[in-house]
Amino acid sequence: MPDPIRAGEGDHAVTYCVGLLLDAGIVLLSDTRTNAGLDNIAVYRKMFLFEKPDDRVVAILTAGSLSITQTVLARLNEAIELDDDEVPSLMNCDTMLEVAELVGKTLSDVTVDVRSKMERMSQKASASMLVAGQRKGGVIRLFLIYPEGNFIEASNDTPYLQIGEHKYGKPILDRVVQSNTSLSDAKKAVLLSMDSTLRSNLSVGMPLDMAVIETDALKVSEKRRIEPDDDHFRAMSAAWSDALRRSFEDIEV
Amino acid sequence: MPDPIRAGEGDHAVTYCVGLLLDAGIVLLSDTRTNAGLDNIAVYRKMFLFEKPDDRVVAILTAGSLSITQTVLARLNEAIELDDDEVPSLMNCDTMLEVAELVGKTLSDVTVDVRSKMERMSQKASASMLVAGQRKGGVIRLFLIYPEGNFIEASNDTPYLQIGEHKYGKPILDRVVQSNTSLSDAKKAVLLSMDSTLRSNLSVGMPLDMAVIETDALKVSEKRRIEPDDDHFRAMSAAWSDALRRSFEDIEV
Repeated sequence: MPDPIRAGEGDHAVTYCVGLLLDAGIVLLSDTRTNAGLDNIAVYRKMFLFEKPDDRVVAILTAGSLSITQTVLARLNEAIELDDDEVPSLMNCDTMLEVAELVGKTLSDVTVDVRSKMERMSQKASASMLVAGQRKGGVIRLFLIYPEGNFIEASNDTPYLQIGEHKYGKPILDRVVQSNTSLSDAKKAVLLSMDSTLRSNLSVGMPLDMAVIETDALKVSEKRRIEPDDDHFRAMSAAWSDALRRSFEDIEV
Repeated sequence: MPDPIRAGEGDHAVTYCVGLLLDAGIVLLSDTRTNAGLDNIAVYRKMFLFEKPDDRVVAILTAGSLSITQTVLARLNEAIELDDDEVPSLMNCDTMLEVAELVGKTLSDVTVDVRSKMERMSQKASASMLVAGQRKGGVIRLFLIYPEGNFIEASNDTPYLQIGEHKYGKPILDRVVQSNTSLSDAKKAVLLSMDSTLRSNLSVGMPLDMAVIETDALKVSEKRRIEPDDDHFRAMSAAWSDALRRSFEDIEV
């Protein structure tokens, strides 16, 4: 059943994005739905990829108010287009840590701007982001940026980070994902994690965007949009349902 | 991994209670942990059973501020002890709908009382409850009572209700529970739903309380406390983990 409406969930609830940090690389998956009102369902990208082959690759995944996330991405893109070494941008930061700090500061600034406009209407707007990638000479890293601009980082102990409607898809990740998980298993894990979320929350929706950044590749190794009629995703989803039901039957009471 | 701390989750997050309404009866499961601070973990019952064999059986499961839930139960018990037909109590209500209304009104009254005391400290306290049971001559019913005292009811289309940390344990229920599910499968489903929650949120804790009310039995048909060292629960949990991992491996990428 869909969730009964609960107060205080905010607009984070209509997104699910997940990133895995593995020895072999990073696997990222996002949904694309931004508003699940009955007659107002829109599809917007929530995954943004920035590449300068052999130098850096950066991915940003977003959850939350579209007014905030679009403005953050617009400012980040503006800084790239300015191409001025005095103005920090995703393409001139020296390290991934600087990238995370730049995204955090931009998110925090935009959130303050947007909230000051909305305060008179006592509405709250916020957004959070995943930032992933690698800079030449550095290691591959994955961060979660909070609405306030501070952030945490994935590690060997915590090889995945999620934003948005993260709980339905967490049990499967807890059981199967470790740092030494292969990229192929990791893609399977994020897709099944998303599948559980799609089943339990009608406001998270297809199509999906998936990206893989292999360690030291310094580029997007694979990217794929999965449409609602994707045969492969549907077959995987059905096979997983069958397997779960069979497993359930096999458990002794 | 345990969840990173997120703002706004409130104290609802440290409980998981679930109730299934099936053709064959009702299956209820709750955890017992009320505070998961590092050195302040307490075990309090969250499931309360009221029986008058051949007349009625009522179960109440609670999530939220202990100061609220204990006071609500104290007032409900006081009314029973008063044994005055002019004072509505769980034991003299004519129907389960009246029971749900009585619990809702008491919860709403207590919440207003407690909040007025706490307002000076700008803290928020709230609680929600599951109310289940059957009154002689009526049908077996399951309600979820919101902090404001209003409620929703389980039905054929929505055969289960949850309070507290409900999301981790929802995917398994969505896949295997229907009105015609047997009580034995239902017990397995709520235990596996709880198992997923225990794995993903460290602040939901053992022991567990489980109760079964068979349709038209007008009594608690089965009740059981499951301790942390319960061999049966541990074996079921391990078997489910193995089955999920095997299923995961079998899915083609």
